[in-house]
Amino acid sequence: MRIEDMTTEEFARAMKSDPLVFLPLGATEGHGPHLPLSTDSLQPEWLCEALADRFDGLVAPLLSYGQHSSTRNMAGTLSLRAETLKMAVIDILESLERHGARKVVVVSGHAGMVHLAAVKGACEEFVRKTDASVMVLTDYDIAYKFPIEKDPEYPDGHGGLIETSRILAIKPELVKTKRERAKFIDPHFMITKDPERFYPQGFVGDAAKATANLGNEINEFIFKRMVELIEKNFEA
Amino acid sequence: MRIEDMTTEEFARAMKSDPLVFLPLGATEGHGPHLPLSTDSLQPEWLCEALADRFDGLVAPLLSYGQHSSTRNMAGTLSLRAETLKMAVIDILESLERHGARKVVVVSGHAGMVHLAAVKGACEEFVRKTDASVMVLTDYDIAYKFPIEKDPEYPDGHGGLIETSRILAIKPELVKTKRERAKFIDPHFMITKDPERFYPQGFVGDAAKATANLGNEINEFIFKRMVELIEKNFEA
Amino acid sequence: MRIEDMTTEEFARAMKSDPLVFLPLGATEGHGPHLPLSTDSLQPEWLCEALADRFDGLVAPLLSYGQHSSTRNMAGTLSLRAETLKMAVIDILESLERHGARKVVVVSGHAGMVHLAAVKGACEEFVRKTDASVMVLTDYDIAYKFPIEKDPEYPDGHGGLIETSRILAIKPELVKTKRERAKFIDPHFMITKDPERFYPQGFVGDAAKATANLGNEINEFIFKRMVELIEKNFEA
Amino acid sequence: MRIEDMTTEEFARAMKSDPLVFLPLGATEGHGPHLPLSTDSLQPEWLCEALADRFDGLVAPLLSYGQHSSTRNMAGTLSLRAETLKMAVIDILESLERHGARKVVVVSGHAGMVHLAAVKGACEEFVRKTDASVMVLTDYDIAYKFPIEKDPEYPDGHGGLIETSRILAIKPELVKTKRERAKFIDPHFMITKDPERFYPQGFVGDAAKATANLGNEINEFIFKRMVELIEKNFEA
Amino acid sequence: MRIEDMTTEEFARAMKSDPLVFLPLGATEGHGPHLPLSTDSLQPEWLCEALADRFDGLVAPLLSYGQHSSTRNMAGTLSLRAETLKMAVIDILESLERHGARKVVVVSGHAGMVHLAAVKGACEEFVRKTDASVMVLTDYDIAYKFPIEKDPEYPDGHGGLIETSRILAIKPELVKTKRERAKFIDPHFMITKDPERFYPQGFVGDAAKATANLGNEINEFIFKRMVELIEKNFEA
Amino acid sequence: MRIEDMTTEEFARAMKSDPLVFLPLGATEGHGPHLPLSTDSLQPEWLCEALADRFDGLVAPLLSYGQHSSTRNMAGTLSLRAETLKMAVIDILESLERHGARKVVVVSGHAGMVHLAAVKGACEEFVRKTDASVMVLTDYDIAYKFPIEKDPEYPDGHGGLIETSRILAIKPELVKTKRERAKFIDPHFMITKDPERFYPQGFVGDAAKATANLGNEINEFIFKRMVELIEKNFEA
Repeated sequence: MRIEDMTTEEFARAMKSDPLVFLPLGATEGHGPHLPLSTDSLQPEWLCEALADRFDGLVAPLLSYGQHSSTRNMAGTLSLRAETLKMAVIDILESLERHGARKVVVVSGHAGMVHLAAVKGACEEFVRKTDASVMVLTDYDIAYKFPIEKDPEYPDGHGGLIETSRILAIKPELVKTKRERAKFIDPHFMITKDPERFYPQGFVGDAAKATANLGNEINEFIFKRMVELIEKNFEA
Repeated sequence: MRIEDMTTEEFARAMKSDPLVFLPLGATEGHGPHLPLSTDSLQPEWLCEALADRFDGLVAPLLSYGQHSSTRNMAGTLSLRAETLKMAVIDILESLERHGARKVVVVSGHAGMVHLAAVKGACEEFVRKTDASVMVLTDYDIAYKFPIEKDPEYPDGHGGLIETSRILAIKPELVKTKRERAKFIDPHFMITKDPERFYPQGFVGDAAKATANLGNEINEFIFKRMVELIEKNFEA
Repeated sequence: MRIEDMTTEEFARAMKSDPLVFLPLGATEGHGPHLPLSTDSLQPEWLCEALADRFDGLVAPLLSYGQHSSTRNMAGTLSLRAETLKMAVIDILESLERHGARKVVVVSGHAGMVHLAAVKGACEEFVRKTDASVMVLTDYDIAYKFPIEKDPEYPDGHGGLIETSRILAIKPELVKTKRERAKFIDPHFMITKDPERFYPQGFVGDAAKATANLGNEINEFIFKRMVELIEKNFEA
Repeated sequence: MRIEDMTTEEFARAMKSDPLVFLPLGATEGHGPHLPLSTDSLQPEWLCEALADRFDGLVAPLLSYGQHSSTRNMAGTLSLRAETLKMAVIDILESLERHGARKVVVVSGHAGMVHLAAVKGACEEFVRKTDASVMVLTDYDIAYKFPIEKDPEYPDGHGGLIETSRILAIKPELVKTKRERAKFIDPHFMITKDPERFYPQGFVGDAAKATANLGNEINEFIFKRMVELIEKNFEA
Repeated sequence: MRIEDMTTEEFARAMKSDPLVFLPLGATEGHGPHLPLSTDSLQPEWLCEALADRFDGLVAPLLSYGQHSSTRNMAGTLSLRAETLKMAVIDILESLERHGARKVVVVSGHAGMVHLAAVKGACEEFVRKTDASVMVLTDYDIAYKFPIEKDPEYPDGHGGLIETSRILAIKPELVKTKRERAKFIDPHFMITKDPERFYPQGFVGDAAKATANLGNEINEFIFKRMVELIEKNFEA
Repeated sequence: MRIEDMTTEEFARAMKSDPLVFLPLGATEGHGPHLPLSTDSLQPEWLCEALADRFDGLVAPLLSYGQHSSTRNMAGTLSLRAETLKMAVIDILESLERHGARKVVVVSGHAGMVHLAAVKGACEEFVRKTDASVMVLTDYDIAYKFPIEKDPEYPDGHGGLIETSRILAIKPELVKTKRERAKFIDPHFMITKDPERFYPQGFVGDAAKATANLGNEINEFIFKRMVELIEKNFEA
């Protein structure tokens, strides 16, 4: 199911049934003092594996690096240029297509705009040149629709309640027990050399309220919505 | 005030007061059967000129072309690659900075994600290399906060109530009198060769309700919010 | 007739008659103390509109930026890299072709060699990939054949007699009344960091002699020659 | 120790001691019917983790994709362009350097010439721009010096005795029990569309003789040599 | 004197006197039925060697390939993209500068506009980044000022009277004895897939009149003018 | 036989017999105090001409510049970026193919890994797009198989016994009579700003033992092996 664990022959055999191929796009990015740098890798990888299980699909190897704008100076954020990321996604999609993939679901854990646009731009170029079908989203397109109680003082965001809960559900040993709450300072559309100053604590939201239970609920919510979407998109 | 109308000496003189320089980014894009292809050029140009008036700033020449994903096959949409747009914005910013500009406000009329990411990515690269201050946004970051009555059946969007009203206020002679209402079909995150099919009428929202009065109110709302933001961002 | 003023449907309808599409390439460039920075935009835009009128053609939106070598340090010259310009022209031509354009006339107001080569190189790449016919020139390919009296002491050039006269005919309100004459210093093929020193007054020729009448004659001369060329090139 | 498992603060703290940072470059590539597609990822990741343990260093996240020439048509080989790989390595190195890394060891599991040149070229460009020290090699630069008995009929290579033994030592559950031996057909320097025909069985060497014991010996041999080299290179 | 013939130490020694370095840019291009494909290489190489002799300068190795637009489909024309040529010229200039060259004269044998713009654009980028002085021209900037008798019916051009005479003077054994005269068909600014049709015989002018004597005179004329220009440009 | 010496018609005629086309890739690189900077140009040019003679093939013009890593700071080494070299080789191959070449042998005199990978990468991209057959190698792939007596103290390499002997055979007037022996310092996989320090004398091996006789033997050895390979590769 994980392409990296298969031999070339196993992969060739699996491709004969025209399976869904899931491509998890991760990142290495500061997520506050309580979450690991791999936060944006763990989530899409978990989701892709769950979906591949459900649909008898394959999971391509995780791309561990993404593009980062506002967090790029936070210690540990390792960022590709947007151009590099776009080229890498095109190359991976073209490789999959050369081996017969015709249905690909790209899931990005990181949801930065420049990052997502590179990924989406890659998918657009790929789709124009092939007959493959591509679905592309960040799991946060769905996660932020989960009905958590709105905290007017600590609106949720990067490394906040939802994200911390999800990692507590996926890989609790990497989450620190000391978890605080933090606010975002609105940059008012300014582009600066030091955008990390808009994240004084490095994350946004009330991570103190995060629980593994809530994380499981959110993960389940995302999973179910993805199942519905995939059925609509690829089985019609 | 419009850079293109000045001589080189007038421009040099004007730069001595360290003025705000406004860069309007336009587009040539299908906006339904009632709006001109220049819809996304008219709005930022109007806004930049109003703001330059207010702040004694300068307006750089309009860039008439942007990047388009979902509307690229609509007749009349003329699209740059994201790479081209990013390079052009970098080149223009670097030219302005070479001549002394230190405070630049980039306003994009088009709000597509890949387009905006190219613009934002350009500003980020520029800011890292210079000491100039850059503010970048689409006027729709503000326009969509204007409190119009929500129409649950016809949610507003591309070429809809707000956009049509604004063009009625700015350049009514280019708006057709027959104006309808239209729905968007959710693409469910699919990337396709023919994304225009998600816009069966080429626009989204209830354009029939649009009026110049409403357009003036929205334009005023955007203008005022921009004035506040610019005062905060550049006068602190 | 101006693509930007049309709706998507009007554009689609107009394309059915296989019209000539005119693409005016402008620039923002210092042209001496008497001419506006838009000098090289005003001329091709005027010409393209006149020709579109004559041939029932369409005019694509002006590209307001070009590439500048010798004038790049003059206040107000906003320059794209040659690579950016070439990519932009390719993108615009490919967009036009995607919507059915098969006969394109590209008119560049700026006549710098590196600029023109970027434009010509773009057209060459485009032509090799499509069946469209492309004519490309600067209006100065024709303008400099207009029989003005040679002034041995003040040979005409950038911002000089011909160019000033043409702008006096097209947009007199942007031309200063104080107009002088200026010489060019031969750079003897040297490439320097400060090429503007070869234009001590920022322009070349006897602008003092310029008149709107002469400008009208020259514009007419260019227009007529263009009509002949277009008839030969596209109606054979 | 693994950067991806650390929080931003843990990473920042760790960087204060000026640690060695190990960057494992993996690949997804056909390695015959008995080895997993991740063969070239497992080896450098194992080595980097062992070395980081030994030197109190850090391990950057694995890059799971490389560039492939001769195996690119084998089912499951997912290949980046050389340009993409080079850009990605530059981006990762620059990110590490921005956060204070001054001693980097890049270990590539894949040893294809075009792949390695992209990696080496990236390191060269990086080194010219910074004061960081970079060591770059493939573990096969050392592995092929391990004194295995030469089999004149089945010379060892891609997916052969050494590689299979090493994976048996690192991750035996991914190695098939049926293991054969295979020959390489010399391409005589021809570049072809179907270079996989020079690997009729998809690998080269006598995989049948591979044992976990031998793999442990080879891994130990590589580890010890790396320890020596690193001590010489970074502790002088 | 020819860099390629020197050892590294001889080159290092020669650079100590801050010599002029001449870079001949050649081409491989169809020049009619009577001239060799190397015509545009022979001329700048001859000129650079003569000038290096005169000024105790050095000659860099010939770049044998250029960019070709109108002749690219003529048998034997081997053309680089403009981008490749520009990058190559930048790389060579930067290499020379790294080794101490501060005065460079670039002479291009080929005079196509896109080719020359690539060369000039390369020199401009180089000059902005260094303190080296660069002179760049094609020998035809001077050759076409040689006062040959104007033949109104057969105006001179590519492979014509001047060029044939010069090759007769430089390398007569490569010039065919059967030499004709040919006309150019004006392309009227059209860009076409088959631009060679504007050269029905593959060259332009009255090659039948060419003589080695005339070639020697023209070469001498170019040489003398170059000597004057170099003295003015570099000895002031 | 040498393409540069032919007219366009001679070339066209020659192409009709579907000849082998040899492309010699040279370099301008420091080769110790006794060898000329053109050492890596002289060898492939000699070989290509000998092979073209033998097979009635054609020789394309020498590309005099290559990519250099470890010797790039040695006086006289003129280096292209790997990207430039790759693009140039693609452009030349595509030009040859456009004129009908279907069998190309690329011989690189320089054997640096990044250089060769650029050349090989170019050939791979070319081969995927055409039906041409391409053989690519450095003559040192064969030369280092010539059975010279191993000198354990002075192992042979860059500018050493083999290379010096070959140049003594090909162009003795460019080889200095004072010839020494030199050792290479192992860089232990470190990438440094000053890689020339690993070549304290600028070359590697016992050049003092070099003779023209040995050079002739080695050249003959390479020639014969090439003849065999070409017969196998292109005549089957």
